[in-house]
Amino acid sequence: MKERQREKQRTTVSIYGQQYTVAGYDSPEYMKEVAAEIDAKMRELRKVNPYLDTTRLAVLTAVNVMDDLKKLEEYIRYLEQQRLTGDEKNA
Amino acid sequence: MKERQREKQRTTVSIYGQQYTVAGYDSPEYMKEVAAEIDAKMRELRKVNPYLDTTRLAVLTAVNVMDDLKKLEEYIRYLEQQRLTGDEKNA
Repeated sequence: MKERQREKQRTTVSIYGQQYTVAGYDSPEYMKEVAAEIDAKMRELRKVNPYLDTTRLAVLTAVNVMDDLKKLEEYIRYLEQQRLTGDEKNA
Repeated sequence: MKERQREKQRTTVSIYGQQYTVAGYDSPEYMKEVAAEIDAKMRELRKVNPYLDTTRLAVLTAVNVMDDLKKLEEYIRYLEQQRLTGDEKNA
């Protein structure tokens, strides 16, 4: 796991032409990485849906990322299940 | 893994008072679940930042979910690493 600075940090990031100040325990580099990924996803979505306004683009981007998150959660349940059955075999 | 219908489905969902039609291979129930989670996160964020407009709320919600996603990806790398070292021990 990446070493995390303990104090909360405020980082200014730019997403889809707007500035945002985000606060958290992660490094500014990490927060800029997260922001850049959202910026890229919004621009990607905009190419496919040029008539969407920025609010709808942002909401649909959030929906897409949540979908990815839930699929990862499903994969983790699968990995953890595998680990359990593996442990039982070696017990 | 949940059984996925093969044809692409269009589902209308409501997020933060707006209707969205989303298309995908997942069930309408699943898409409504995803939409409901984004709706809840936006409302949660709004309580903490009442002055944010809807666009900024949606963008910051997407940032928060992306942060969760990247932390899960890190956790999966850790689980997969564990699985590899576990396999080597039993080889």
